[in-house]
Amino acid sequence: MIRTDLAMEAVEYAGQIPGVSVISDEVMPGLKRVRVTVETEEGERAVGKKRGIYVTLEAPDLAQGDVDLDEACSKALAAEITYMAGDALDGSILVVGLGNRQVTPDSLGPAVCDLVFVTRHMHEYAPDEIDQRIGVVSAIAPGVLGVTGIETGEIVSGVVESLKPSLVIAIDSLASRALERVRTTVQVANTGIAPGAGIGNKRKALDKESLGVPVLAIGVPLVVYASTIAQELMDTALKQAPIDRRMNDRLQKVLAGLNDVDGADMIVTPKEIDKVVQDLARIIADALNIALHRNLTLEETRRYMH
Amino acid sequence: MIRTDLAMEAVEYAGQIPGVSVISDEVMPGLKRVRVTVETEEGERAVGKKRGIYVTLEAPDLAQGDVDLDEACSKALAAEITYMAGDALDGSILVVGLGNRQVTPDSLGPAVCDLVFVTRHMHEYAPDEIDQRIGVVSAIAPGVLGVTGIETGEIVSGVVESLKPSLVIAIDSLASRALERVRTTVQVANTGIAPGAGIGNKRKALDKESLGVPVLAIGVPLVVYASTIAQELMDTALKQAPIDRRMNDRLQKVLAGLNDVDGADMIVTPKEIDKVVQDLARIIADALNIALHRNLTLEETRRYMH
Amino acid sequence: MIRTDLAMEAVEYAGQIPGVSVISDEVMPGLKRVRVTVETEEGERAVGKKRGIYVTLEAPDLAQGDVDLDEACSKALAAEITYMAGDALDGSILVVGLGNRQVTPDSLGPAVCDLVFVTRHMHEYAPDEIDQRIGVVSAIAPGVLGVTGIETGEIVSGVVESLKPSLVIAIDSLASRALERVRTTVQVANTGIAPGAGIGNKRKALDKESLGVPVLAIGVPLVVYASTIAQELMDTALKQAPIDRRMNDRLQKVLAGLNDVDGADMIVTPKEIDKVVQDLARIIADALNIALHRNLTLEETRRYMH
Amino acid sequence: MIRTDLAMEAVEYAGQIPGVSVISDEVMPGLKRVRVTVETEEGERAVGKKRGIYVTLEAPDLAQGDVDLDEACSKALAAEITYMAGDALDGSILVVGLGNRQVTPDSLGPAVCDLVFVTRHMHEYAPDEIDQRIGVVSAIAPGVLGVTGIETGEIVSGVVESLKPSLVIAIDSLASRALERVRTTVQVANTGIAPGAGIGNKRKALDKESLGVPVLAIGVPLVVYASTIAQELMDTALKQAPIDRRMNDRLQKVLAGLNDVDGADMIVTPKEIDKVVQDLARIIADALNIALHRNLTLEETRRYMH
Repeated sequence: MIRTDLAMEAVEYAGQIPGVSVISDEVMPGLKRVRVTVETEEGERAVGKKRGIYVTLEAPDLAQGDVDLDEACSKALAAEITYMAGDALDGSILVVGLGNRQVTPDSLGPAVCDLVFVTRHMHEYAPDEIDQRIGVVSAIAPGVLGVTGIETGEIVSGVVESLKPSLVIAIDSLASRALERVRTTVQVANTGIAPGAGIGNKRKALDKESLGVPVLAIGVPLVVYASTIAQELMDTALKQAPIDRRMNDRLQKVLAGLNDVDGADMIVTPKEIDKVVQDLARIIADALNIALHRNLTLEETRRYMH
Repeated sequence: MIRTDLAMEAVEYAGQIPGVSVISDEVMPGLKRVRVTVETEEGERAVGKKRGIYVTLEAPDLAQGDVDLDEACSKALAAEITYMAGDALDGSILVVGLGNRQVTPDSLGPAVCDLVFVTRHMHEYAPDEIDQRIGVVSAIAPGVLGVTGIETGEIVSGVVESLKPSLVIAIDSLASRALERVRTTVQVANTGIAPGAGIGNKRKALDKESLGVPVLAIGVPLVVYASTIAQELMDTALKQAPIDRRMNDRLQKVLAGLNDVDGADMIVTPKEIDKVVQDLARIIADALNIALHRNLTLEETRRYMH
Repeated sequence: MIRTDLAMEAVEYAGQIPGVSVISDEVMPGLKRVRVTVETEEGERAVGKKRGIYVTLEAPDLAQGDVDLDEACSKALAAEITYMAGDALDGSILVVGLGNRQVTPDSLGPAVCDLVFVTRHMHEYAPDEIDQRIGVVSAIAPGVLGVTGIETGEIVSGVVESLKPSLVIAIDSLASRALERVRTTVQVANTGIAPGAGIGNKRKALDKESLGVPVLAIGVPLVVYASTIAQELMDTALKQAPIDRRMNDRLQKVLAGLNDVDGADMIVTPKEIDKVVQDLARIIADALNIALHRNLTLEETRRYMH
Repeated sequence: MIRTDLAMEAVEYAGQIPGVSVISDEVMPGLKRVRVTVETEEGERAVGKKRGIYVTLEAPDLAQGDVDLDEACSKALAAEITYMAGDALDGSILVVGLGNRQVTPDSLGPAVCDLVFVTRHMHEYAPDEIDQRIGVVSAIAPGVLGVTGIETGEIVSGVVESLKPSLVIAIDSLASRALERVRTTVQVANTGIAPGAGIGNKRKALDKESLGVPVLAIGVPLVVYASTIAQELMDTALKQAPIDRRMNDRLQKVLAGLNDVDGADMIVTPKEIDKVVQDLARIIADALNIALHRNLTLEETRRYMH
């Protein structure tokens, strides 16, 4: 069993597993969809993921200027949200942008919040004026433990207590095991955010158990920890071959560099990470705006949002 | 009675008032302190402010590169916070940065949060390792109604419910009536934030009644609404003098321009508002770091914060 | 004669003037176009503007979320650029974003540079691969005197010397006399930028005389100096009416506040200036991308720019 | 011979070299200084660096909140600048911030420009008022080829032509071969910036030959290209040991991931890169302010800069 935020990576490493079904198809050329369903306790143990549905949309060219592809991804993601949310979409939806606005690779959640069409206050203060096709949406970016001194879960559960939404949708930057998944993969799950997921170290789960309402989680891998890569290289080649001492020392040195250097986490990430975060935030926010305001066109949403 | 966030402006307009005491002194040349105490219900009605203490620090050269002056202001502010907070400083303090991070003149609160030394999580997760001279501080910037869809008060009361701090300190950008107070005046009060204060339109009070814990409020005027100036000009000159029609029309036109133009709020503010906000945030954060971590020097605080 | 960056404001104040023609029409409902042509030396003196063409596009609802209006404005602006530039569009175009990136109301020029499709290096380094429909465009944001220590004109003329473009297009934030023109008016002129224009105090002209190539200038009023408003109020009402001393003192005090306060320039500007700058930068960049890459659609341009 | 921006890395790989002298000492505990002097043509060929002096300051704890260490580094760097610049410091100094402001790991140069005390315009416009102890300093951040369409060298040589400074000091983010040097090493050289150095691909040298004035270059490694690490691993272990096919395939896959993924450059960098850039920019700007305004204290400089 391998530690990863992506159910599909866990399955990939584990191979065929009883209690876990995997269905793949192609949404359009260049956009693949993988649906992993963990059905039993045995499946939970095998992949290290809670029972539920995990859908991954994968497109190597995502967020690279192919407008049609990006839009297709937003629509496919919106369809999954709609399916997973069910009737909860008729109620009030709280979008939670996890992560740290000031640490670029961890800022996807807050960036999505900035682009979601937020409407709860309009329904509250001007119920007669608002277009009734518009959903009831609120959004917060609670910050991270190191910045607020407060567990994200404590802030979110306080807000949920006070707002009583019918659904929470949490957005987060993820760490992946594989560089080819960085920036190219979007996962949505109906199981909430598990402890330890994401780029920061989130300690408490945001899920139905902790919050009392259903929680969807959307995440995109934006980094691979350098230490993960080092570990993986160690685990494969180095143990196997009988290599001589001098060579081994040199290798160890290179790999050691990939681990923590003086306490500073080293990550592998795209050089243009600032732009990558903006582009992906737009794709996810479009998906949310389609799913949560289902009777509006995206164009209408943008006009309203202005 | 005049509508203003500054008790001292209210008093200035009202003159000598029963139930309201006003004491002024000079902290150092160029830094004046005015302490307004509203003592009775009659005083409350006369100045439109709740019973409590309102201290204003005024320095025309504040945040202009005079390091000694800025530091003196931080220390004087820290002394007021210490006095008003009393024993509550021994407990857990929640700093709340009001306002909108994306609207520069309204971003003082969030900017202060970024500079406060936040420590609650260290006391929680590593109680044996933390220097016990360090206070217990957490900080959130909840965002504004138009961005989150949620009343600031709802978010804050949810968090207060869950954290049970002994004191809340709220920071906000204010609107003033007088341009000479913009950027040069810091007010701290032990009455919380009243409804309608600040640059955004905050609807619900953050105070002991609403949150169940004492609330200090720190604010700095950063704008004067253009409409306030227009109103003031109207109210004085124009009503008085018998001016001819053509002249009156022209005047009305100039003044009309100061009011809302097509729904866009026009404000009067320093051209260098981006820098002004940063400088004032540093002054206030220094005051908080002095008051909340009273056994550390500022230098130690900065080293820890890194 | 009145001091203003907008030819159309100068004309408005001056009335009918020999040597100056003014033609107005409506591009679409809500979008007015005024073309001022200063034809003679007499006209130059009368309006304080050099001989040339000054076109103003005016739309009270500009940059407020009306996608059709904004697009119509971009297209109308592109048409004027195309007309004024003539054959120079076949050569190499240098876009110059004037102003200070760190002072929000002065950051329009740099913001436009960030959104223009820059292609000169592609023609230079991969001439065989580049789509020949794409124009030859470069862009710099040289910074302001207070930040670089160098006159903007010195930097630009150095770059022009080295690049030898066929045309320079300069973009700048302007100061207006009238609040209703802030954010709602775009001016394009074929005379370059005159000394003293803009929000910062630009000292040297950027024009055909100083640079040796034709210079178009595009500007949008984003502020009115508070002192301008005070001056205007003084000049009209206050001189006229016999007002009593006490009243006069009070008025003078209000107006004094509008002038420089301790050396800090006070401006009147929209509260949401951060967003206003972004929206207008998009409108102007779209116009440039249409005019400079005339054989591409905007959609193609965006795809290329990614 | 190994491709690297750091002379000291080149030497480390090459060992003892005729025509190259290497002297190390310790500025203080935790701050090491290495002075590499390339003296002959033979030395040039051996280390792939032009004749000249390359000084490296190395501190594993640099920019981590140790105020004394950071200040010692600024002072040691200032001493090298002073020594290398010689009499040129009496003239006009142009600081050039290379790199891309919008790509965080490449933004060190522009960030330094924001913090340097720029004074040339004061000497020009108010020569009688300026404190004559203040040096003559200007600063530009010209942007990168992909953003401006113009070679950095073309912009800089245009500006040098027009300003005729006595010295250019260029600041740049570097790529290193070794992760332990990222963020911990500052190099200053009197040979200018060589082609291909830095994080972006700078094509033309900025040096005495190209600009006609002496050029100092200051750089800090902020990333290691993932492909560099992969290459290094390949070159050592994998070629050596006879490993079986399946294992080899797996290894190749891991390493392939470190190379370009769909054209997106993958880098290894600290997770907190935004903060790292800010801290290092402060250290370098302090060094420049000490060296270029040698008769002012840092405190005086900060006060002036406000």
